[in-house]
Amino acid sequence: MGQLQDLGEFGFIQRIQNRFPQQFKDGVLGMGDDCAIIPVSADRCTLVTTDMLIQNVHFLLDAISPDDLGYKSLAVSISDISAMGGHPTYAFVSIGIPQHLPISWLDSFYDGFFKLCQAEGILLLGGDTTSSQHDLVVNVCLLGEAVPSELKLRSFAKPKDLVCVTGTLGDSGAGLRVLLESLPKTQDADVLVARHHHPRLYTQEAKWLAKSPYVHAMMDVSDGIDSDIRHILHASKVGARIQVEQLPLSKELLRYGKENDFDLHELALTGGEDYCLLFTLDSQAFQDIAKAYHQAFSTPFFVIGEITEKADLEYKNHDQEIQFGRKGYDHFRSGI
Amino acid sequence: MGQLQDLGEFGFIQRIQNRFPQQFKDGVLGMGDDCAIIPVSADRCTLVTTDMLIQNVHFLLDAISPDDLGYKSLAVSISDISAMGGHPTYAFVSIGIPQHLPISWLDSFYDGFFKLCQAEGILLLGGDTTSSQHDLVVNVCLLGEAVPSELKLRSFAKPKDLVCVTGTLGDSGAGLRVLLESLPKTQDADVLVARHHHPRLYTQEAKWLAKSPYVHAMMDVSDGIDSDIRHILHASKVGARIQVEQLPLSKELLRYGKENDFDLHELALTGGEDYCLLFTLDSQAFQDIAKAYHQAFSTPFFVIGEITEKADLEYKNHDQEIQFGRKGYDHFRSGI
Repeated sequence: MGQLQDLGEFGFIQRIQNRFPQQFKDGVLGMGDDCAIIPVSADRCTLVTTDMLIQNVHFLLDAISPDDLGYKSLAVSISDISAMGGHPTYAFVSIGIPQHLPISWLDSFYDGFFKLCQAEGILLLGGDTTSSQHDLVVNVCLLGEAVPSELKLRSFAKPKDLVCVTGTLGDSGAGLRVLLESLPKTQDADVLVARHHHPRLYTQEAKWLAKSPYVHAMMDVSDGIDSDIRHILHASKVGARIQVEQLPLSKELLRYGKENDFDLHELALTGGEDYCLLFTLDSQAFQDIAKAYHQAFSTPFFVIGEITEKADLEYKNHDQEIQFGRKGYDHFRSGI
Repeated sequence: MGQLQDLGEFGFIQRIQNRFPQQFKDGVLGMGDDCAIIPVSADRCTLVTTDMLIQNVHFLLDAISPDDLGYKSLAVSISDISAMGGHPTYAFVSIGIPQHLPISWLDSFYDGFFKLCQAEGILLLGGDTTSSQHDLVVNVCLLGEAVPSELKLRSFAKPKDLVCVTGTLGDSGAGLRVLLESLPKTQDADVLVARHHHPRLYTQEAKWLAKSPYVHAMMDVSDGIDSDIRHILHASKVGARIQVEQLPLSKELLRYGKENDFDLHELALTGGEDYCLLFTLDSQAFQDIAKAYHQAFSTPFFVIGEITEKADLEYKNHDQEIQFGRKGYDHFRSGI
């Protein structure tokens, strides 16, 4: 029997699911989406998501400020709840603390965490605190609520749907490269690092999109489009064609990427941690939804491709087919 | 500003609570008990608890078998739900995995976890899997359900209540000493280590006790009576007198402790991780409850002291007052 990196994260999760087939009844949904779904009543269900962040795997303690880490620890879970069409309600945070961390650092961590709780109407109801011999570890378990008819599952994509995202891609991944490769600290670099450490949340946009029956599948961009969209394709038993020339890139990434010779398409597709929304939209409704969305948020969303019948992921640059070597971020194969 | 060990675990949690006073309304209860309570309807509430276990803080990877670790990771959370008068429903497990762990180890871990899920009727609904650079980290978030009228809070103790436990004390702490101090590996030692790695759960007993209005406060023994009872005294604004000669000790601990010169009273009070139930009982009802309990479970529970008006924790050995230097297990002050 091998090691984890032979199997990969996706393979490992699949392995757990296969070993423990569960009879989901009464509308309970377990592994396989951003959150688990637990029915409460005809018009209400509970969503649950949990995320573990470990020093030197998900963050560099010297690079991120404690309040940004507090913010981000919660933000990644809020993003999961939103992307299913719910709103977050109750948070639980476990923290394993190395001896050397001063209390003032922890105070700032909880400040960042709590400010976001307040902004999103979340109550911090508990957790666990313990020491850790080496790395700082944070685990957030977040509960949320949704109206069952507004749930957006990964399995809801349909052939001919448009594939859309709500924000620019690759900024967070570029920010991480700035840190890991000690790239030049320009003003653009600062913006990219900030997007890595303090990702913008699309909770209002998610709420709006959840109400539309023309929005089919939805999830958040956490591991990178290349990895994330495969979850939608797998769950919906469909394929997709992504037009890389349509990937939305920020002006900071365009400038900084050019100066530092980044492969922007690869970064946009595999950088991960953008935490914008990835959704599929009935193409018939595109004009109306795009117009109403722009009116509501004063920014557009971006069409980056189309869902296809054939269960296959295809990349095109205008008319030309292209290949990617990397298959998105994998926590077991990559370092931080 | 100091380090965490100056503040201690209790002090740190108090600090978080003080910094973030929350308006708990509509019956929501946050930090300060074994679980958080979220009301669902007049006759139902959701309980949530979360526990983080870190290698070399909570377990030694070489000493515990993977299926015992899977069992124990979930058992400690089940114990919290039971001790409030609820039953567990849905589990979420996050795991941070060091590179060197073989997949076969992980399979056994999930086997241990899943066997306990099945025994207790729990659905494993999700989690997070990631790599870890140094230590194995497991975080379990467990949801449960309770009938509001059967909830047993730490704040429910009343003066003159009897202080009771459902199992022997100190076995788990002794098992840990066997491992840490490389003590003689006798048959008794094996039993004590097994009680440390695979603690017995009192879910049926908890369910039974929860139905009695004469059982007031209840919690599980996780950090040791000396530490745990202080939570009840603090929450209920009462004191207690514990009779150390009444502490129930197993025959294995009595024999092995004598051979190895253990301070049995100290071990029983501060060893921790017994995961039996600690509850307070209306003394008027003692005879009836004790008899019915014995009929139901063919074993007695044990009276170890009394709740007092004066907010103070007192230890007596028969009539003689005694002092303890240690104040229970503290994750920030002790090693594993």
